[in-house]
Amino acid sequence: MQSTICALASGQGGAVALVRLSGPDALVITHTLTAKTQLFEPRRQTFCPLYDGKNVLDKALVTYFKAPHSFTGEDVVEFAVHGSPYIIGRLLERLCQAGAVLAKRGEFSQRAFLNGKMDLVEAQGLCDVIAAGNKAAHRLAMSALDGKLSARLDEIKTKLTELLAQIEVRLDDVDEEMTPLSTEFITQEISVVLAHIKSLTDTFSVGRLIKDGVKVAIVGAPNSGKSSLLNALVGFDRAIVTDVCGTTRDTVEETLEINGQKIILTDTAGIRSHALDVAEQEGMRRSKRAMEESDVILFVLDLSRAVTPEEKQLWQDIQDTHKRTLIVLNKSDKPSAGTPNLADLSSYTQFTVSCKKGDGLDALKNALTAPLNEVEKDGLMISNLRHYEELLRAQTELESAQLQLAKNVGGEIYAEHLRGALTHLKDLLGEVTPDDILGVIFSKFCMGK
Amino acid sequence: MQSTICALASGQGGAVALVRLSGPDALVITHTLTAKTQLFEPRRQTFCPLYDGKNVLDKALVTYFKAPHSFTGEDVVEFAVHGSPYIIGRLLERLCQAGAVLAKRGEFSQRAFLNGKMDLVEAQGLCDVIAAGNKAAHRLAMSALDGKLSARLDEIKTKLTELLAQIEVRLDDVDEEMTPLSTEFITQEISVVLAHIKSLTDTFSVGRLIKDGVKVAIVGAPNSGKSSLLNALVGFDRAIVTDVCGTTRDTVEETLEINGQKIILTDTAGIRSHALDVAEQEGMRRSKRAMEESDVILFVLDLSRAVTPEEKQLWQDIQDTHKRTLIVLNKSDKPSAGTPNLADLSSYTQFTVSCKKGDGLDALKNALTAPLNEVEKDGLMISNLRHYEELLRAQTELESAQLQLAKNVGGEIYAEHLRGALTHLKDLLGEVTPDDILGVIFSKFCMGK
Repeated sequence: MQSTICALASGQGGAVALVRLSGPDALVITHTLTAKTQLFEPRRQTFCPLYDGKNVLDKALVTYFKAPHSFTGEDVVEFAVHGSPYIIGRLLERLCQAGAVLAKRGEFSQRAFLNGKMDLVEAQGLCDVIAAGNKAAHRLAMSALDGKLSARLDEIKTKLTELLAQIEVRLDDVDEEMTPLSTEFITQEISVVLAHIKSLTDTFSVGRLIKDGVKVAIVGAPNSGKSSLLNALVGFDRAIVTDVCGTTRDTVEETLEINGQKIILTDTAGIRSHALDVAEQEGMRRSKRAMEESDVILFVLDLSRAVTPEEKQLWQDIQDTHKRTLIVLNKSDKPSAGTPNLADLSSYTQFTVSCKKGDGLDALKNALTAPLNEVEKDGLMISNLRHYEELLRAQTELESAQLQLAKNVGGEIYAEHLRGALTHLKDLLGEVTPDDILGVIFSKFCMGK
Repeated sequence: MQSTICALASGQGGAVALVRLSGPDALVITHTLTAKTQLFEPRRQTFCPLYDGKNVLDKALVTYFKAPHSFTGEDVVEFAVHGSPYIIGRLLERLCQAGAVLAKRGEFSQRAFLNGKMDLVEAQGLCDVIAAGNKAAHRLAMSALDGKLSARLDEIKTKLTELLAQIEVRLDDVDEEMTPLSTEFITQEISVVLAHIKSLTDTFSVGRLIKDGVKVAIVGAPNSGKSSLLNALVGFDRAIVTDVCGTTRDTVEETLEINGQKIILTDTAGIRSHALDVAEQEGMRRSKRAMEESDVILFVLDLSRAVTPEEKQLWQDIQDTHKRTLIVLNKSDKPSAGTPNLADLSSYTQFTVSCKKGDGLDALKNALTAPLNEVEKDGLMISNLRHYEELLRAQTELESAQLQLAKNVGGEIYAEHLRGALTHLKDLLGEVTPDDILGVIFSKFCMGK
């Protein structure tokens, strides 16, 4: 017998709080608290007292959602109460005394999944929708919650299932009464499925950036204007979301929104080639790590003076990372010392800016977010690592199948790879995922969902 | 024309967020977002998409409350959306683009008050219900929100109004056709009203403690076990609500719940009479201030050793405060050095405890909260300073009226005092309160209420 679970579904600290109860005993438990035995009309908010012994704990708006027409697919009752810490705590206690148990993280969503109200991809979308802090991440998550991503995955799965059925029926056809499939046909069909999958896996690099934010390392010689650039980028947008000091005084991290995208700026310590003491060496080490961990490097040069030997060394280090790098030629408000004398600099995108005056910053900002906007136009994207990995595994199986096909081996061999690919697609949608893996996935959800 | 206001009514950070919209345009604005023009059936939750241009911002449960059957008495629409910071922010933006304005603090409650959905005392009760962190404060606030306190105040007001009417009709009776009221009768009637008001003002000292918590200063010589007592009281209840360090390292504050009451413990620095340096003098000064600011003093003595001259001086200081003081005889687990030799100590309640073993602490805890429980049985209480002050002013006016009556002055004189008392009662219920004062009162409410 399934338990009846309860949890605070809204945040702490508001004027109103929403407590959610889901399971076979939801109505019975509600009757205990409201001292009413009549049925609540589904979806209609009823204003009624919740009792705590003889006292009224609160007057609440109570709404009943009849199974299967609820979020979880079970009987659900929602209590909109006054948002006091006492009322919330006591109501949950009373619900548990009446037979409910406190929900685990993601348990409402897990039940919705188990009752077929959504698949795993949609459930993950729900989780991402709640976490989304900006427009791009929100749209990305909504396309998963909406079922658009699931629909595409389902299409791919169906295509592969049909191909596999045609192959397997012939494997069973020991008398060889059926017309065999040509290797060309099978190869072609696999290629179509592969292309669909690759069009999704290709979006992961950008999807991940949209969901988690673009990490930008600002590097350059001391006094080239790294901190000014960070302040100018943050200040002109007035959109500081967090202000986290790095683990040391050498790096400062700022999260901000540029063109609806999450950008995480790291101002690294000035990098010098002739480190004078241990502290500076440590600073250099951290700066190099920031570059390694970044998605984009902004290399800041002071236009008003000649390039130093240290900057030449730094430029070499930057190129060695093979990261996307934008060149920021700062201090355009001062007389220029001429084009910086650095090898291959001209093959990188350059931005002449004045952090002091704010000139040229918009172009730099647009360049930072441009790749994200371009890809997003295509529609569906993958941003979840689990989804990406399952798709990659399916892709590998399909590629193996094609290799075997080319070798002209028996159908049993490549059919096995196709079956493997199909299993990964089903795993992705949660169709064959074992309970313990489901538990891990849903435990990352937020409370009350 | 009244504006239409919107705000987040639930807390930040949950799985679900509740955004509230109230005012004459609530439905029209909702239609803009839902792209639906049909009427929403009142109180029925409708699952529908909220649009942001061509995109779906979220799928929400939308509920319409038709005026006057809503919290504010106006048309109200509530949107239960996914609790993401982006969705909440964008929904409020979209509502404002469609014609709403962001609500000020307490503006929903203020409208409820202005539309006669509740009086000022009930509105204050609502505010206190939301803030209540423990059972006693919750019950206190609920009796105000329930209208029980308002009903009592209304009774008192009616009694006074009737008396005043009888007096005034005779003041207008220039031909003296009516039987005059006897001085005894008027005095008696005023006394009845006064007794009712005093029965409420008398509850304020306890009501305030229930609402704001009992401030307990733990004082004693160094090493008498002050910190152990604090830790024992906190630890055994495992109910630390906050852990605020004092402004200096000399005092530590802990808020906890004992028997459903809020208790704020302050561990003061060891008080010595021969302060050796400035820091110690400062510590002593702060300890004395903690005693002055406290509601109860716990004087901790070490049973295992004789009383020191410093403790004698401290005992004198404690007695000079005239605060409620409980004597804690600590270290009962060690051999006793005999009854502490301090004047009048026996006339105070004493508790023999062992913080180390936990002995005797329950009796001490019960003593701390006993006065609060006793008075609460009587029912209605005053815990709000504004309510208390208005009642005190009414009380003063009534006492002045009685004084004038005793002097046998003309009815015009004491009638004026009775009118004054009536005005204060009406102020209390918000019947004659000017707009600017209302603004101040409601601005202390929480957001979204």
